[in-house]
Amino acid sequence: MTKSIRVVARIIAYPEKVEELKAVFLELIEPTRQENGCIKYELLQNQSDPTEFTFVEEWASHEALDAHLASAHIQTAVAKLKDLVASDVDIRRYSLLA
Amino acid sequence: MTKSIRVVARIIAYPEKVEELKAVFLELIEPTRQENGCIKYELLQNQSDPTEFTFVEEWASHEALDAHLASAHIQTAVAKLKDLVASDVDIRRYSLLA
Repeated sequence: MTKSIRVVARIIAYPEKVEELKAVFLELIEPTRQENGCIKYELLQNQSDPTEFTFVEEWASHEALDAHLASAHIQTAVAKLKDLVASDVDIRRYSLLA
Repeated sequence: MTKSIRVVARIIAYPEKVEELKAVFLELIEPTRQENGCIKYELLQNQSDPTEFTFVEEWASHEALDAHLASAHIQTAVAKLKDLVASDVDIRRYSLLA
């Protein structure tokens, strides 16, 4: 069996853009969950620093994740990020150990 | 219904201590999953930087998470970390948005 890929992706909003960025991210949830190979796609917000959003994801393969990153809904969201985020998006791929 | 607490905790090992730290973390899995209020407790390893370990967790309440952090198995692990980790443990608490 091929092991799934786990992803943790972290993004920091400008403080005055938190709600706008949250709306952009919420629009990603349903189309992403309908993608081939998407096992889990959850959006979290840091309780002590609401400017920080984190996606916790699980994908069937690197190919499925790469197709997601190239998808129209992700590209549309990325185009909106420039004025909303204070840092680059930090996307990391993980293996589940236990 | 009280919302559960999501946690992402990130730790960087010294390069020569990766396997030793992994063993310490693997010993935490079973006793932690048996704790009251533990909904999910997963250990991940970064695929491009194996010195980075990340726990992805879900707890029924802050009280359950605080009890976990004060537990004997966590305190035993923390006592072993000093010579194994290159950074402080970065523990962040999140709310699930979607």
